[in-house]
Parts: sequence; structure tokens; C-alpha cells
Amino acid sequence: MTQGFSFDLHATDGKARTGVIRTPRGEIRTPAFMPVGTAGTVKAMLPESVRETGADIILGNTYHLMLRPTAELIDRMGGLHRFMNWHGPILTDSGGFQVMSLAELRKLTERGVTFRSHIDGSRHELTPERSMEIQRLLGSDIVMAFDECPALPADRTRIAESMRLSMRWAQRSRDAFGDRPGHALFGIQQGGLERDLREESAEALKAIGFDGYAVGGLAVGEGQEAMFATLDFAPDMLPVDKPRYLMGVGKPDDIVGAVKRGIDMMDCVLPSRSGRTGQVFTRHGVLNIKNARHREDPRPLDESCTCPACRGYSRAYLHHVFRANEIISAMLLTWHNLHYFQELMAGMRAAIAEGRFAAWEAEFHARRALGDIEPL
Amino acid sequence: MTQGFSFDLHATDGKARTGVIRTPRGEIRTPAFMPVGTAGTVKAMLPESVRETGADIILGNTYHLMLRPTAELIDRMGGLHRFMNWHGPILTDSGGFQVMSLAELRKLTERGVTFRSHIDGSRHELTPERSMEIQRLLGSDIVMAFDECPALPADRTRIAESMRLSMRWAQRSRDAFGDRPGHALFGIQQGGLERDLREESAEALKAIGFDGYAVGGLAVGEGQEAMFATLDFAPDMLPVDKPRYLMGVGKPDDIVGAVKRGIDMMDCVLPSRSGRTGQVFTRHGVLNIKNARHREDPRPLDESCTCPACRGYSRAYLHHVFRANEIISAMLLTWHNLHYFQELMAGMRAAIAEGRFAAWEAEFHARRALGDIEPL
Repeated sequence: MTQGFSFDLHATDGKARTGVIRTPRGEIRTPAFMPVGTAGTVKAMLPESVRETGADIILGNTYHLMLRPTAELIDRMGGLHRFMNWHGPILTDSGGFQVMSLAELRKLTERGVTFRSHIDGSRHELTPERSMEIQRLLGSDIVMAFDECPALPADRTRIAESMRLSMRWAQRSRDAFGDRPGHALFGIQQGGLERDLREESAEALKAIGFDGYAVGGLAVGEGQEAMFATLDFAPDMLPVDKPRYLMGVGKPDDIVGAVKRGIDMMDCVLPSRSGRTGQVFTRHGVLNIKNARHREDPRPLDESCTCPACRGYSRAYLHHVFRANEIISAMLLTWHNLHYFQELMAGMRAAIAEGRFAAWEAEFHARRALGDIEPL
Repeated sequence: MTQGFSFDLHATDGKARTGVIRTPRGEIRTPAFMPVGTAGTVKAMLPESVRETGADIILGNTYHLMLRPTAELIDRMGGLHRFMNWHGPILTDSGGFQVMSLAELRKLTERGVTFRSHIDGSRHELTPERSMEIQRLLGSDIVMAFDECPALPADRTRIAESMRLSMRWAQRSRDAFGDRPGHALFGIQQGGLERDLREESAEALKAIGFDGYAVGGLAVGEGQEAMFATLDFAPDMLPVDKPRYLMGVGKPDDIVGAVKRGIDMMDCVLPSRSGRTGQVFTRHGVLNIKNARHREDPRPLDESCTCPACRGYSRAYLHHVFRANEIISAMLLTWHNLHYFQELMAGMRAAIAEGRFAAWEAEFHARRALGDIEPL
């Protein structure tokens, strides 16, 4: 275990776990939801507001930051924390997933990936070694091993080959990362929906040894049922005393189902992206502020919510500023959504600590079943 | 004088004045700069942040709000203060200027203006009576008389006819406004750059009687020199014991020159609009954050500024988020600009109170002469 980085499990309830990850930059209460700050900003939020929602840690994207403004520039400006004025822990992804989904003219070899930037067409290379270097330059507290994963559905041969390549890259990531007290390196389990491939991947990662383990290769098109079926066994293959991170998840019910299956950390653009498109998450489900039914509604988004959007504004106002394309719409709805996601995590942490997760989950689903779900 | 509304002049220094306007919604320290909240939001700012910059009062636009979401809806939602969560004083313009500059297919008659909305082409009418009704529905604290003004340059006949129409509308505005304790009605002086027409207009307004007087019809294309030449005489024609409001001004040096000539209140979209286009106002002049010279500059916008943008971020970061089209760019730069404008007003208020306005003004110009002025 890396010096200065630790994970204490405080309680379990079924497979659900609660605890705390300690880093030199601060504690991360788990289960934790990490807002995504892709390009050095959680979109439409000041970092102190992100903190106010209850977030302990945010995620930064290696792929975006390496292209603009570059990891080298961020390093010269004192690292990502100082650059973006967020002084809590930051987890950075490895860039692997986003190269495959965003970049142009990708070429994948044993060595790594070459590609052209989606911003200006410039040519770049990402390898395990380069990914470790970039994440070091950014000053990331939790570094992710460089991996590759196919979108699902994909055939078993492709999934197995990809997973084995990722395991060789995991070893190269571990070697290149070296010994960096206070900074953690997480490995990423692959293997699609296949139990034996997930097992093979977990064994490979444990043999290398990491500070935490991600379940990768899910939330890539397989649907919630298949994801949960995989989460029924995949997290159990990972060390019980290390954080387990499910990448890129998800909707509130995905998150609840993942925590129920033993996941400790998650990240997703959903609350912030939805804040910009007018989709609002509440205890009662989802509403879309652009819908005409909100035009003259004096109620807040959620009567019991304590976020600034709910304390200060009616649905009528939020409808108006959304329709008028005003920036305050993205600011208030993003704040509300992030607040809701953090309240969700806090509710689960308390329920797990008190051994009442099943009752909490039943209430979560019951409240949504009674509420309004508005299609986009 | 309207009950519940008063103006106390505390000190004068040359023609410059400082004092306080008292309203049931709070005090307005003068000279005052009013940020513009066109459509029920000072763009990219939460209202509590607008307050933190030092603003005592904001401006709302009758034209925009009557079209969307409509004054009637805002009234049903409890008025504009509650709707937009700003609980200090609000001044609303009459809609006249913006109908002439924004609406389509305008038709001007003695009765008023008919026009088509720039948003959806719907047909509307604004008259002195309707403008008073809309501003009442909004719950405005300071209501502006309905007027009309030509862009400059314009020939003397057009300016004189327009001014006399505006004076007849001023009387109709006064009649329609009635007696509304705690709510003030301001008249608007017109007459272009012509001393005798300004005098005729001032006399007409004083005969009607208002709680404050605006100098209208400036900052419409005539240039700073002509504006200052007019401000050398126009404010002196207005009652000394009532607030004098210069509409739509302006750049920092316009503001300083206007205060020097006896103006008490101003409004302008410049600090907020510039915040979205990357133009930054500081004590040292103007900089444009998109310029390549800021790409790797670790300094804040202004070392001595205490706004959140300057306390937390480098020019390099602000350059990055501007280039990446991130919403936080508009949020931070708008906050900085509004903070700078309010600091400018606070500096003038203190200098006038202490009888050192001339020295303050000399230092204001000297600091800018030494600084960097970057073209857009």
C-alpha cells in the first residue's frame, strides 16, 4: 500500500460497504460519487460550490487535459489542484477510454494508441508510460492504470484479447508509476460480461498489486440488467480491503444497485450534463424543466431539497431561464443535480452504517414509483 | 416626493455628488452602478454573488420581460424580486429604448409603439400607460417614464419632435403611475446634444414632478467627447435634491467623467457582456483573456483585486477555460468585471466624501496610462 493513502472499511450491510479513503489532500467518504471536471472545471460550477454539494473528490480527464491546455502547462502552473482551484483529492482517468470514444484516426498497437485530437487534429500518442507521466504532471491523487475496452456488445474473442492487452498495460502502468508516497494507483478489471474473463483479469491485477481496483468495461452499452448481473460477481473477485471503483456510472438507480453490490466509488457526467439540458433528478424521479407544465409552477424542484436552486427559485423561474438560454439555468440545475447525487450517497452511507440498507433501498424505489418521471 | 423613497446628498466635490437613496427594499449608495439583469438574471451570476460585488440595485428590462415570461406571469409568481431571488431594489426601464433598438416592424404614433417580438414575431403594443402597468406588475422599485429617443447623429427637427413627444408621454406616465408609496417614478430628459432642447425638456419634467431624473438619449452613438460636452450642462438643469441617472453608461472612463459632471446613477451591460466575450476591466485598463500572451501567465487578472476570479485563478487558467468555452469562464470574468465596476464606484464615493475627487481622478487616469490596454 502506498504511504499516505489508506482505506478503512467502517461497516458492511449485505455486500454494501461504507468507509473512508484517506489521502494527503483529504478524506473521501465511501460510497463516494465523483463529479466530473473534464477540462479543469466541473461545468457551470465554482469549485467551492462543488464542495458545498458534499463532494469529497472530483475526476479529471487525462485525454482532454493532455490536449488542452496540456499536462506540461498545468505542471508549470503548479499542478491541476492549484490550476483549477480545487484542493481536495482528484482522481484522473488514464485517457484510454476517451481516446477510443472521442479521438479521430486511432491506431491501437501493443505499445499503445496513436490518434488525432478532436480539437485541432494534432497527432498524439498514449501509452501506459505516457499516461502515467501525464497523470503525474497533473498531480493526480488517484491515478488510473492505462487500459483499453471495447464497447458492448462485442464478441468474446475481442473482449478476451482486449482484457489481456489491458493486463499487460496494467503491469507497464505499475512499473512506470513507481513509488509515489501519497499518490495511489488503481488497476482496472476488464472482461466484459464474462465471469471467467473477469476472474482472469482480477487475478492478474492482484498479482501486480494496486491501491484500489476499478470495475471497467461496464456502462458501455450493455444495459442495466446485464451490468447488475456482472456486478453480482465481479466486485467479489477484488480485494475486500481496497476501494472498488465502478467507472462512468451512472443514473441514481444504477448507483444504488452498484453500492448494493459492493462498489465504493463512482463517477459520471450525468448530473452536470443533465443540468445543462434541463433534466433534473429528485427523490421523486426525473423532471424536465423545459416542459410546459412547469411554466407557471411556483413550487421548487423538490420541496425538501436544501440546494440553492430549491431554496431560492420556483420551477417557473427555472423554466423561464432555461427557455431563455440563460447561463444561470445551467448553474442552478447542475448545482441541484450534484446536490441530489451527494445526498443520495450520504443517505446510503448512513443506511449502511446503521444496517438498514435494504429498507433504505426499498424507500428509494417506492418514492420514485410514486413520483413523476418525465421523458426528455 | 413619494412616501418611503428619499434621497440624501451627503457631500459634493466640484459637481461630483455622493449620497444615499432610501427605498423600502434597501439603501442605494450613490454614485451607484446598476448591473443589468435583462431577462430576470444578471447573466452568469447568482444574485447573492451580484450583491457580494457591492451592488445595491440592479436593472430589469421591461421589453424583455413583457415578452418572456410576461409581466403577468411574474406578477402571479409574486413579482420580479421573488421570481429572480434578488431582494434589493430593482429599477426597470420603460421598454421604449429597447423596442426601438430590438423589436421588428415598429410603428410609432402619438399613442405609443406597436411592434413584433424579436423572439417569436408576436404582436405587442407599448404605451406610457402599458409601460406603467408592466412595471407595476413586475414590482419595480424605481419605474422609468416611457420615452422615445433617436440614435445620434439625428437632425435637430427629429430630436426636438421626439423630445416633445417624450414629454407628452412623461405626463401620461405620471398620470398612469398614480400614487404608489415606496415606489418611485423617474422622468427622462431628452434633447440630444442641444442645450436649448435639454433645457426645454428639463423644464417640462420639473413642471410634472418626478422622484428622480434621468439624462436620456446619450450613449447612442455620439462618442465620449460629445457626451461629456452635453453632461457639462444637462445635469445642472435637473433638481439638485433628486437623483440623476445617466442611462446605459458605460466604460469606466465614461462613468468617472459622468460622476465628475454630477451624475448619481448609471447602468450598463458592459461588465457582464464583456465577461462573456473575454474582455476584462482592471485598474490598469483592459485585457482580453483570449490573447495568447495569457496562455502561461501564472498571475491573477489584477494582483490587488479581491474578487473570486483574482483570489483563486491564474490568467493561464482563465485563458484555458475561455478557449475551451467553459461556462466557468463567463462566471469568473463577469464576477471580476462587476466587482471592478463596484470598486470604482466605492472609490469615487469615498473620494467625494473626503473632498479629494480631483486627485482620485488623476490617479485613475495615470494608472491606466501606465497599464496595458489590449484591443479586442
